[in-house]
Amino acid sequence: MGRTSTARERLLDAAGDLMRSRGYSSLGVAEICARAEVKKGSFYHFFESKQALTVEVVDAYWQGERTCWTDELARSAPALDRLRRLLDAMAAVQRRTKEASGTVDGCLLGNLALELSTQEPGVRARLEEIFDEQIELVAAVLAEAAAEGAVPAERATVATARAVVAQLEGMVLFAKLKNDPGVMDDLWPHTLRLVGAAAGQA
Amino acid sequence: MGRTSTARERLLDAAGDLMRSRGYSSLGVAEICARAEVKKGSFYHFFESKQALTVEVVDAYWQGERTCWTDELARSAPALDRLRRLLDAMAAVQRRTKEASGTVDGCLLGNLALELSTQEPGVRARLEEIFDEQIELVAAVLAEAAAEGAVPAERATVATARAVVAQLEGMVLFAKLKNDPGVMDDLWPHTLRLVGAAAGQA
Repeated sequence: MGRTSTARERLLDAAGDLMRSRGYSSLGVAEICARAEVKKGSFYHFFESKQALTVEVVDAYWQGERTCWTDELARSAPALDRLRRLLDAMAAVQRRTKEASGTVDGCLLGNLALELSTQEPGVRARLEEIFDEQIELVAAVLAEAAAEGAVPAERATVATARAVVAQLEGMVLFAKLKNDPGVMDDLWPHTLRLVGAAAGQA
Repeated sequence: MGRTSTARERLLDAAGDLMRSRGYSSLGVAEICARAEVKKGSFYHFFESKQALTVEVVDAYWQGERTCWTDELARSAPALDRLRRLLDAMAAVQRRTKEASGTVDGCLLGNLALELSTQEPGVRARLEEIFDEQIELVAAVLAEAAAEGAVPAERATVATARAVVAQLEGMVLFAKLKNDPGVMDDLWPHTLRLVGAAAGQA
């Protein structure tokens, strides 16, 4: 109970906070334990390795973000409006982080994908599943947009959905690099072009 | 002379090779020196810090890549053809790396931007300059495409050019994550949509 029962959760929270700003490789188990106020010996009671912990950090991050994705995409509104709200929400996350900490941290999933996908197969596999899920969610809303006549049916594909998520991740990269969430302000017009919607739509 | 005169170059080469596959944080100066066959004491004769070395690694990487960019963009051909050749060349780099090493390494500039732009201000500033230069090169070729009537004049902007480079970096991220350079096969049709060219053009 008490501190013991929350130690696992505190390790996950501490690792998530540290990884969002500093990535994976520069973190050691000792530092994660110190921030979580958990003894290093206890770490391996909860997690087999830093890699195993990271898979759970990634899962927890996506669990939170997925709630945002599915909430925005499940609203009662035209499909393209819902896609726009989702992308606006992603930009809002970067703005809030900048306001709170002074720094645009980017997307933990994209950061880890580029930092370590060639090195940590367990993390890579989980990240691949998550990005595939994001692409499927976008493809589903594009199919609805096509059914509503808002985008051409031939654009309502997984390939277009992948381009939309790639554009999002590329713009997050620039926002992080410039430490300026305003870089993402253009995301919507570019996305409209990718999906082939009429200019000025949504 | 001999080994001594090439020690600086060997340190840069070794660091570049290691960073392409493993990023920045997990590398130590000792490992870079061991791979370069240079004594650790000599490292600080050539470079003030690992960060200073990394700025030079980034410069050397972009010097090589920029030659490819300017060669492709300076050809005597319609502007959109030249842009297409540039993007094809970027995809070819990922295919060749996969064939040679079994692994898609991605783009060193994008990898480092996401791994450490919040941590190493000197590297961040140089990466920002390089991506700005890439965006300017694309904006210039879009202006030529507009003059040729191949894209609408209102799309020949820095914002569109940034979207093109963001799409490239996002697709490289997916190619690295999936260890599959084939992910980049769709890059050209998506780019045509971003720049507003007629379907089937170039």
